Amino acid sequence: MKFSDRQSEIIEIVRNKGPITGDEIAEKLGLSRATIRSDLSVLTMINILGARPKFGYFYTGKSILSQLYDDLKKLKLKDYMSLPFSCDQKTSIYDVVVDLFMEDLSSMFITEGGYLTGIVSRKDLIRFMIGDADIKKTPISVIMTRMPNVFYVNENDSVYEAASLIVEKGIDSLPVVEVKSNNNLEVVGRFTKTNVTRLFVDVCDGEII
Amino acid sequence: MKFSDRQSEIIEIVRNKGPITGDEIAEKLGLSRATIRSDLSVLTMINILGARPKFGYFYTGKSILSQLYDDLKKLKLKDYMSLPFSCDQKTSIYDVVVDLFMEDLSSMFITEGGYLTGIVSRKDLIRFMIGDADIKKTPISVIMTRMPNVFYVNENDSVYEAASLIVEKGIDSLPVVEVKSNNNLEVVGRFTKTNVTRLFVDVCDGEII
Repeated sequence: MKFSDRQSEIIEIVRNKGPITGDEIAEKLGLSRATIRSDLSVLTMINILGARPKFGYFYTGKSILSQLYDDLKKLKLKDYMSLPFSCDQKTSIYDVVVDLFMEDLSSMFITEGGYLTGIVSRKDLIRFMIGDADIKKTPISVIMTRMPNVFYVNENDSVYEAASLIVEKGIDSLPVVEVKSNNNLEVVGRFTKTNVTRLFVDVCDGEII
Repeated sequence: MKFSDRQSEIIEIVRNKGPITGDEIAEKLGLSRATIRSDLSVLTMINILGARPKFGYFYTGKSILSQLYDDLKKLKLKDYMSLPFSCDQKTSIYDVVVDLFMEDLSSMFITEGGYLTGIVSRKDLIRFMIGDADIKKTPISVIMTRMPNVFYVNENDSVYEAASLIVEKGIDSLPVVEVKSNNNLEVVGRFTKTNVTRLFVDVCDGEII
């Protein structure tokens, strides 16, 4: 259902000021109590507003919203991450650049023997390229951000935690890893600001919760 | 308030299957009707579930959630965009790279006489740098994506529209513009996947709606 502008205003008032009496709501709107009577009836009938004698109107959506936030915070990375791409750390910078273009990636995960040793962003590549070094001969390991300075997540971590980490650390892309023997990290996914942006659109479309 | 696991399960069942009787809910949970009686009382008392005789339990949150999605979709770019950065199109590629690093940007807006003529992403820069051209002598206009091929938005457009455009077109950064005389575009902001990621975290924290 769609609310009228006046109904939306009433919900907003009750959400911020409730519990509040019908007279007080009318006064805030500069209208008479009689004018908003039918709006209040509709809104209480569909349970958006509750009403109790000697208490006033209150907003019933608080617990539903807080449940929504809980639900959003519980979304798991494994359901929203993308496929990982990685290169061995002996790969030349030139070949990494070519791979980034082929797959349209913002970062490449760097491995040795299949396990995570670093990460290279577009920014790292640009920084290197303004120098004079030969990008066909220089291995990627020279410019990568190296473990243990790489931020990573687990597929059972929440999307919320990963997005918070991205914002807090100012990074583009997180490797999603599984811890193997000797604390080696196998890359099983990647999670980026693109994933969050897509998720935001889907939440707005009512497709997630 | 926090729901118990069982209460969350009941809400989930009613949300997906309602209207549904108490007996049917109990059966789905593999519990007796008596066991879930107090949960059902609590959930109806706080208006998350409604109950009608001969109809069953139903989820009252639908209209609240749809209002939430409407609210999310109404958020305006002007309240969430960042400051814009731009360079004149005669600037050398080298100087643009330096500026990108100074301001930690993923894209630079390119102007002539103060009006938008193009945009350059990190990806464009990397593509150029694997060639042999002199980045100190080549003006940025040589490699920029040029109007009318630049996607842009208005500060009164919604965050939802901008995020949808970012996902759909696979871009990093949108200039937020004002249309001036002769259809010249003045850049007044920028909106990126970083803005969306930050907004997503704030929504989860209950700070937006």
